[in-house]
Amino acid sequence: VVAIKGDDSGPPILGKDKTPLTLAMMERFKSTWCKTEPFTQLIKEKGCISRKVLNRFCYGQCNSFYIPKTLRRRTKRKVFKSCGFCRPKRTNTIIVTLKCPGRKKGFKQKKVRQVKECQCQER
Amino acid sequence: VVAIKGDDSGPPILGKDKTPLTLAMMERFKSTWCKTEPFTQLIKEKGCISRKVLNRFCYGQCNSFYIPKTLRRRTKRKVFKSCGFCRPKRTNTIIVTLKCPGRKKGFKQKKVRQVKECQCQER
Repeated sequence: VVAIKGDDSGPPILGKDKTPLTLAMMERFKSTWCKTEPFTQLIKEKGCISRKVLNRFCYGQCNSFYIPKTLRRRTKRKVFKSCGFCRPKRTNTIIVTLKCPGRKKGFKQKKVRQVKECQCQER
Repeated sequence: VVAIKGDDSGPPILGKDKTPLTLAMMERFKSTWCKTEPFTQLIKEKGCISRKVLNRFCYGQCNSFYIPKTLRRRTKRKVFKSCGFCRPKRTNTIIVTLKCPGRKKGFKQKKVRQVKECQCQER
């Protein structure tokens, strides 16, 4: 059983007191990673000729924690928690024009959200 | 640039087609971890004598991903995403009785949510 200093006055693991456990957690937390990987996305629409566009997806392992706290009237929060999500940090919206021989107008424009860069972020 | 099979018909990385990238992702995803760590929680209340109870907190690194998809009318979802959260899988509510010399009643009962076990879970 480990007594965590700062349990009452603030977030235990981010407090000023660096207990061995806190340090061990911080050490392990360093190995977090979130990759930005390119892939070819097929843009399809009925009656139109499909087109390929470059896009990117994110995958990785981010930090998360959940620490119970006694209810304090001021904050009302019973837990101190955080969950990292490997998701886009920067995106771009591009317009893709598809040729549509099967349609009156002859073409169709589609909005595609293009991922530029991924990062572990608080959800 | 890596073309992901199954991009159109379903989730690319969980599809039947095991591309080298899919396998690499699955391999890296195996190293996910979520620890259950005991700590002493101080239960406080104004006018009462504080008591210590055993509790547990969770911390770790869980898988998350974010994959853009073309809008399909049936599902309406533009992304295929998932975020794992290292949080309690099993909890218990315990009643802690505090002695309160400064109060009329002489005691105060407090509910405390006790964490039993942590696990990476979909948020």
